Amino acid sequence: MSKKNKKQKVKPQVLKGFRDYPPREQIAREAMLAKIKDSFELMGFLPLQTASLEFAETLLGSHYNEDSLNELFGFQGPDDVDMALRYEFTVSLARFVASNPTLPLPFRRYQYGNVWRVDKPGPGRYREFMQFDVDIVGTQNLLADSEIISAMVSTMDKLNVKNYKVRFSNRKILNGLIEYASIPQEKSSDVMRVIDKLDKQGRDAVILELGAGRVDVSGDKIKGVELENTQICKIEEFLDIASQKNVSGLDAVEKLLGSIEVSQTGINELRSILENLSNMNIDATKTEIDLTIVRGLGYYTGPVFETTLLDLPEYGSVFSGGRYDNLVDRFLGRSIPAVGSSIGVDRLLAALLALDALELKESTSQVLVTVMDRERLPEYLNILQELRNAGIPSEIFTGDTKNLTKQIKYGDKVGIPFALIAGSDEFEKGLLTIKNLQAGKEKAKETSDREEWLKAENIQESIEAKDLISYIKENMSTS
Amino acid sequence: MSKKNKKQKVKPQVLKGFRDYPPREQIAREAMLAKIKDSFELMGFLPLQTASLEFAETLLGSHYNEDSLNELFGFQGPDDVDMALRYEFTVSLARFVASNPTLPLPFRRYQYGNVWRVDKPGPGRYREFMQFDVDIVGTQNLLADSEIISAMVSTMDKLNVKNYKVRFSNRKILNGLIEYASIPQEKSSDVMRVIDKLDKQGRDAVILELGAGRVDVSGDKIKGVELENTQICKIEEFLDIASQKNVSGLDAVEKLLGSIEVSQTGINELRSILENLSNMNIDATKTEIDLTIVRGLGYYTGPVFETTLLDLPEYGSVFSGGRYDNLVDRFLGRSIPAVGSSIGVDRLLAALLALDALELKESTSQVLVTVMDRERLPEYLNILQELRNAGIPSEIFTGDTKNLTKQIKYGDKVGIPFALIAGSDEFEKGLLTIKNLQAGKEKAKETSDREEWLKAENIQESIEAKDLISYIKENMSTS
Repeated sequence: MSKKNKKQKVKPQVLKGFRDYPPREQIAREAMLAKIKDSFELMGFLPLQTASLEFAETLLGSHYNEDSLNELFGFQGPDDVDMALRYEFTVSLARFVASNPTLPLPFRRYQYGNVWRVDKPGPGRYREFMQFDVDIVGTQNLLADSEIISAMVSTMDKLNVKNYKVRFSNRKILNGLIEYASIPQEKSSDVMRVIDKLDKQGRDAVILELGAGRVDVSGDKIKGVELENTQICKIEEFLDIASQKNVSGLDAVEKLLGSIEVSQTGINELRSILENLSNMNIDATKTEIDLTIVRGLGYYTGPVFETTLLDLPEYGSVFSGGRYDNLVDRFLGRSIPAVGSSIGVDRLLAALLALDALELKESTSQVLVTVMDRERLPEYLNILQELRNAGIPSEIFTGDTKNLTKQIKYGDKVGIPFALIAGSDEFEKGLLTIKNLQAGKEKAKETSDREEWLKAENIQESIEAKDLISYIKENMSTS
Repeated sequence: MSKKNKKQKVKPQVLKGFRDYPPREQIAREAMLAKIKDSFELMGFLPLQTASLEFAETLLGSHYNEDSLNELFGFQGPDDVDMALRYEFTVSLARFVASNPTLPLPFRRYQYGNVWRVDKPGPGRYREFMQFDVDIVGTQNLLADSEIISAMVSTMDKLNVKNYKVRFSNRKILNGLIEYASIPQEKSSDVMRVIDKLDKQGRDAVILELGAGRVDVSGDKIKGVELENTQICKIEEFLDIASQKNVSGLDAVEKLLGSIEVSQTGINELRSILENLSNMNIDATKTEIDLTIVRGLGYYTGPVFETTLLDLPEYGSVFSGGRYDNLVDRFLGRSIPAVGSSIGVDRLLAALLALDALELKESTSQVLVTVMDRERLPEYLNILQELRNAGIPSEIFTGDTKNLTKQIKYGDKVGIPFALIAGSDEFEKGLLTIKNLQAGKEKAKETSDREEWLKAENIQESIEAKDLISYIKENMSTS
């Protein structure tokens, strides 16, 4: 860097739609990711990592154009190759499976990492965000679908969420409804897309959109699917029935659509999944058949799943997926059946924090060894090493100041529970002073005076040096 | 996807210089990452994640051009903003610190993740690769440098590497050498760059490059720095001394360069670090002062560190860094001192695998529950749940085949240690058959016949159903 450059300062900023995760959030995030991993590994799912950048045609198919490339972070890279950052994992999973013909199937894999989309950024909506996927590739056996639902339930349990519901349905039932209502094939995905809005927009809006369209709250005209009234009536008939959950809903829909083969297949599949879940001893209050579930993505072909937090319905589904039996087609020209589900990591993290389901640790260190007297550095370093050898995460104050109050303040700000203080007097007596910075914070909350506790006698203790490890270990768990 | 698209198949391939991590490697990688994290957290380092994409000027400074942007994965993104994928973490760390003025300092942070560079791909050289950094920002105190070296040592120990050496030196000593040899400032970084080649190219090549240049093995002319003979002699004088390690090297170099202030400062700093390491009880055989170490990157300003695997010197340094006191300048126009070190994750992983330092687990599942008789699915699912409830990672065969041999083969290929087999006869007697697939593999190695063991009687046992959990737990650890 020349001196000229130094004078021209660069504004320290992140790109629109991007963000950093400062330690406090990243500690919570890592804790959550570890729990999800544990949950999936207990079920024998294997980790996979795929490349972040892919050929544009891998992500978009061979007929992509500049516009579709610009919806991703797509660009012409080295050797003039069109490439883009992945926007989800499923296509990369399909590519991986297609190019590894000796892979043992069924392939049970999980993958987590960032994905990138050029969406309009907004509160909680980022252009870079993390997903955590779990899938089983290479089987039509409904045991796989049942395992995915089981993974969803056990992961939510592992994450300490009490009040949630994993809801599921089957696209095949809706495909039968399309047939039942004599809706032409080319309108079917539009009809699905509109029914998918039931939860958010309500039934009236859906009915209007299936017909001539409607005007939304901001005054914008939303185009309708232009179904005929008789067609809409049949969908309404279905929606009436679909409000019944579980077996009674299935029985009712069987009466309505059972004569249509694809619906009957869908109903049988859901019955079989229900039975598996029961045999797996999955808590029956945690799952529910809900026949109005569509899941937006066009590629689902069978069972579909979603997970709602009953105390935070506004978060939408935090863990969703379904069966997609055609995706590998793009590469192989033949089907490999697959089923899976995906967690929006940052949305779920925000929810867990809102629900107090995740214990928040501010700092990794339990103990800050302060440097009161630089002559005593050998002793401080010795104590530091002793703490670490005992498995107690600890640090020594490495800053430039000799001021003890500033050192303690650092520990307080970082969120370290204990500060260790010792001067020559104490060393000679074999004593150490432990300041409990957490207790200080609690005191500060009461008195609203953050400075005061720094002087307070009652949040520090003098202990014998030989008792240090046992003192910290005893007080760590309760702090 | 229209039917037309389906017919035009996309080749399932990764971009040049990119790769996937299949489960076997990813399991090892995750295990290694977890150990590194533990090691850093025990020392009170805090996790940070920054955005993967940055403004081009953040990464390259305000005077970047199209050429420098093309050395990164740089492109014009949404809103016509020039952006690029990060090529390392340090600039993002500096940006984060610069934009968070209330951050408590010193900031002890670790960050791991992918970085991207448009280098020429080659064996072991990828365009997307993972780094794991550890830094302390905001202090000139040499305790920080000592903590970084301590982190390097304890991480290598934690990773079960026996035979390694963390070598360190100080750029200030070399800066004094530049002064001592009367080398003009504009040639100093070229001289450093050439001395840095000592390890790989040997002394003769370095001397030639400092002078008129040389011809390398492939016949290419390598331009020389064009130093005068008297200047080169003085560098040779230094190199003679620098071959002595630790205190004796420091004493000798003090005689040569002690009259030059910057060198004397550098020598004193190294003495102070040595003292700290000794007070931290760091194994003295694991660290070494080596005054020939430069570390290529221009931005180092003080102590520099590297880690060599003594049994695999061809891997070069797997964990390196140094003090860089000027980097935040780009954003703030003033200095914030910092020191840190970085692991090339995939190179280190390859090394650990070559050294057998990492226990390789092929599969996450310990037990495959086979489905011999679909009528008995409720029982199989019950057993599956029982295993998982006992914390034993397990899966049920979810594939489409009913063929037991194929199910067992799946378990073998995935690397699952145990397969559980039970038919109606056994259920009625309260028995289960456990096939030890690992033992089978060992047998297969001996007989070179992978098929044979599948039939072998002696690698399967019949146990009482009630003993399942204790049987697996007993045999898990030894398998």
